[in-house]
Amino acid sequence: MIVDIATRAYNHTFKVDPIVRTLLDTDFYKLLMQQMQFVLHRDLPVTFHLINRAKDLPLARIIDRKELEEQLDFVRNLSFQKNEIIWLAGNTFYGTKQIFRPEFISWLYDFKLPEYELSIVDDQFELRFHGPWAEVTAWEIPALAIMSELKARAVMKSMSRFEIDVLYARAKAKLWAKIERLRQLEREGPLRVGDFGTRRRHSFLWQRWCIEAMMEGIGDSFTGTSNVKHAMDLGLEALGTNAHELPMVYAALADSDEELRQSPYKVLRDWASFYSGNLKIMLPDSFGTTYFLEHAPEDFSDWTGLRPDSKEPIEAVEEYIAWLKARGRDPMSKVAILSDGMDIDSIETCVRHFRGKIGGVPIGWGTNLTNDFRGCMPHGDDKLMYPTSLVCKVMEAAGRPAVKLSDNPTKATGPRDEIERYLRVFGDRGMAEHEVLV
Amino acid sequence: MIVDIATRAYNHTFKVDPIVRTLLDTDFYKLLMQQMQFVLHRDLPVTFHLINRAKDLPLARIIDRKELEEQLDFVRNLSFQKNEIIWLAGNTFYGTKQIFRPEFISWLYDFKLPEYELSIVDDQFELRFHGPWAEVTAWEIPALAIMSELKARAVMKSMSRFEIDVLYARAKAKLWAKIERLRQLEREGPLRVGDFGTRRRHSFLWQRWCIEAMMEGIGDSFTGTSNVKHAMDLGLEALGTNAHELPMVYAALADSDEELRQSPYKVLRDWASFYSGNLKIMLPDSFGTTYFLEHAPEDFSDWTGLRPDSKEPIEAVEEYIAWLKARGRDPMSKVAILSDGMDIDSIETCVRHFRGKIGGVPIGWGTNLTNDFRGCMPHGDDKLMYPTSLVCKVMEAAGRPAVKLSDNPTKATGPRDEIERYLRVFGDRGMAEHEVLV
Repeated sequence: MIVDIATRAYNHTFKVDPIVRTLLDTDFYKLLMQQMQFVLHRDLPVTFHLINRAKDLPLARIIDRKELEEQLDFVRNLSFQKNEIIWLAGNTFYGTKQIFRPEFISWLYDFKLPEYELSIVDDQFELRFHGPWAEVTAWEIPALAIMSELKARAVMKSMSRFEIDVLYARAKAKLWAKIERLRQLEREGPLRVGDFGTRRRHSFLWQRWCIEAMMEGIGDSFTGTSNVKHAMDLGLEALGTNAHELPMVYAALADSDEELRQSPYKVLRDWASFYSGNLKIMLPDSFGTTYFLEHAPEDFSDWTGLRPDSKEPIEAVEEYIAWLKARGRDPMSKVAILSDGMDIDSIETCVRHFRGKIGGVPIGWGTNLTNDFRGCMPHGDDKLMYPTSLVCKVMEAAGRPAVKLSDNPTKATGPRDEIERYLRVFGDRGMAEHEVLV
Repeated sequence: MIVDIATRAYNHTFKVDPIVRTLLDTDFYKLLMQQMQFVLHRDLPVTFHLINRAKDLPLARIIDRKELEEQLDFVRNLSFQKNEIIWLAGNTFYGTKQIFRPEFISWLYDFKLPEYELSIVDDQFELRFHGPWAEVTAWEIPALAIMSELKARAVMKSMSRFEIDVLYARAKAKLWAKIERLRQLEREGPLRVGDFGTRRRHSFLWQRWCIEAMMEGIGDSFTGTSNVKHAMDLGLEALGTNAHELPMVYAALADSDEELRQSPYKVLRDWASFYSGNLKIMLPDSFGTTYFLEHAPEDFSDWTGLRPDSKEPIEAVEEYIAWLKARGRDPMSKVAILSDGMDIDSIETCVRHFRGKIGGVPIGWGTNLTNDFRGCMPHGDDKLMYPTSLVCKVMEAAGRPAVKLSDNPTKATGPRDEIERYLRVFGDRGMAEHEVLV
């Protein structure tokens, strides 16, 4: 074995092995939302916070605070590189050239992430970001990816080189076995699966491997990746539409119950002033999918599709199909994007169930694509390598609390009295509790 | 990704990527037998040949003749390195210091492999080696390892980097699953497993990985490796005793039926003049285990153990135990080394069956340890990656044909009329046909 001494010595000099090495290592929907926030809500102050939904996992005892700060400080110092911005400005996204306006592109040149506040309570990190919405929002993905990868690194610190080798071999074999099932699914009919796994990935390099495996395994049925950096490097489509933070902030800004009721539609009309075609995807569950669909103005029936995110997917899409039919629209011209904790079993079930019933159920495959190491530890218990249920959510806008109900009450966020107020306004029809796995 | 340009450029300059890089990359029993051949039969001319028992696999259409010649020429030019010979002279093998005599060690300094003759008939390579026994014998392992690895390389030539990555990940995961079963077996009682997989290994580096996996997985229950190079590098015991070529040559030299009948015992008495203790292992099946045991002189009951090689292992070891008891010996003080096509199922079955019945059944795990890629190809059919049933055997000694009957008539080798003569002399009691898998 020949060791290259120069490379070895160079590696010794690193003070930190960065997890997020570029601001482009984020999800594409962040940029789409950022543009809208920048144009329409430039100075709106918001607070985001990152929390670990798994309270029994004492993350602050597993991850070293200093290492976490080093990683967060590293991305705080990043700016977009010139070649990255030129690519954002020049590339075609979702079939649209120049999807980003010149003033937003100019703003990106100087963009840096705002400050963070880190504290430890009950062995959990509390990480908060405060500032203008278009700046704070950009913390979500790097903060989650850093926390997720630091946890994986912490577990691997006690493993030998050989154990780590076996770990990755097993994880690769496990993913490839899933991909073989996707290949079978592809032989039976159309299939569209994309990577949505940045936020809770095992690591940057592992996500790259998973994407390459999908490219190798299902070729054109692999629709792309939500990760902008990987999309640029690998010539893939960058995927993503909009997130809960949009209706949550719009709802927080509502000055009356009636404005609150209208806010989920107002935010989408604003969205439609920026984006069209396959980007006109409704995220209906912030305050209950059933309420959203029943009260949606007629023109929302013409949107391209739906992304249910907290209801059992078959139930949600069947509800959408019935809604389309009731409004005289052809479900075969619509899509339903499934991105809530999907894994190979549910992908197979949903894809097979909906063939011929709707135009497509494109899969946004997340954590179970980029962080499935269950059963892969070479020795004994591998629970520590399970993905952590981390989320980074808006908690306040203009000093008012932000609320999400969702279709699954266990996922509801916000102060209790506010949740109750929202439930009075929107009702709880169509909501049902079920376990959140990732 | 940082590419080290110097390393890359250096790699470009290789004319051949050698498979066997040192004469020490061979099985330990070759050196033990070589010493005996050198001392007792210095000028005896023999012919060995390498054949592919799987006639339906057209190796000469898969492996490029020129590449094969380059590899064979490469090892022809090798000599033992000084540090290797010093290690052979100074190391303790099987508990014995200076197991190799000074005159043999001196001879090794100048040793080179003799010439080879290569031809192609019916899409099969015919590879022959002719010369003094102690020289020709050393071709067996490098010739087999070269053919085996060239076939694997040929199959991988059409694979992408990514496919090869998946291939190895799956093979690693597959081996580790076997090792987890060995760990369970170890928890139930004593276990001894060693690597005997040099000759039909996938590659040198893969064998190294398999050995390291065994060290990591079962620790002290891993007894070592037959491969001298890996043993030296990793500080492991070098394993191996004697092979069929010894009784086959002694039988060929016999001038009468009576001398033929005595030859299996004569060769072992010569062996015992060189080696003792755990090296006094009888290989009983050259002309039938049943005949061998029934006619063995009384003192052979005191040998340390037996290595059945062509009979179903449980049947063979039960026969040995009954024989020991009939001769008043305690089976618990003996061992039976199992090395014929073992894999995890048969290892479990045999180890569990014989606990408490005999001192031990140390496993010599060969091809199914170092070359099990079944089910590991990322796309479709992987039969080409199955190990090839290659053997390199003595075919003539002093101009006379060499014969092996074995306990399994499908494994018999030699001219038909000679096989019949041997069958008249030794009988066929206890022989039974069964399929040869590797």
